[in-house]
Amino acid sequence: MSEPDHTLPECPIARFLTVLEGPWATLVVRELLMGPRRFTELRAALPGISPKTLSARLKGLERTGLLTRTPYAEVPPRVEYELTEAGYRLQTVFTAMAEWAERDLPVR
Amino acid sequence: MSEPDHTLPECPIARFLTVLEGPWATLVVRELLMGPRRFTELRAALPGISPKTLSARLKGLERTGLLTRTPYAEVPPRVEYELTEAGYRLQTVFTAMAEWAERDLPVR
Repeated sequence: MSEPDHTLPECPIARFLTVLEGPWATLVVRELLMGPRRFTELRAALPGISPKTLSARLKGLERTGLLTRTPYAEVPPRVEYELTEAGYRLQTVFTAMAEWAERDLPVR
Repeated sequence: MSEPDHTLPECPIARFLTVLEGPWATLVVRELLMGPRRFTELRAALPGISPKTLSARLKGLERTGLLTRTPYAEVPPRVEYELTEAGYRLQTVFTAMAEWAERDLPVR
């Protein structure tokens, strides 16, 4: 499950899981589907995530081409993370996940 | 992310991730979407999974109501795992994952 990109598995479900590894990557994408976000905004939206984990997930998603990182030459410096077109197309998967969970996994 | 069922998170995406925790649970469901399977068949279909992990994932999915476990009084004893209706409805999520990965995550 931890193969590098150039040996992505044949099965598309396994490929999906290799890239969206673990819950945090998925929750980071969920946040970014709402629009570009700064590092501090992502941290605030994801209680419990450590800066190290958030940084690692953002780097991984950038490497796979799902998001871009844009630094702005401001004081203080500002960096924005934004999904690429491929990243935004994950919306269909998230909608399917949410619809299934709303129906079949009610909050008790 | 490791809350028990009775405190499932409000966000449906987070609920989905709580139940389908880690890659193996998802790959077990992928196998069972093709029909009922025995423990040994699941192991053979998922190279690298340990019997302990497979057993834990099957118990978790049974507890959440996504699959049923049916023992048959045969010699040797046979146990079959089958998705419930809620489990089979995960097909839409898996189709969305696969379609996205086929388009946006090509095997290099």
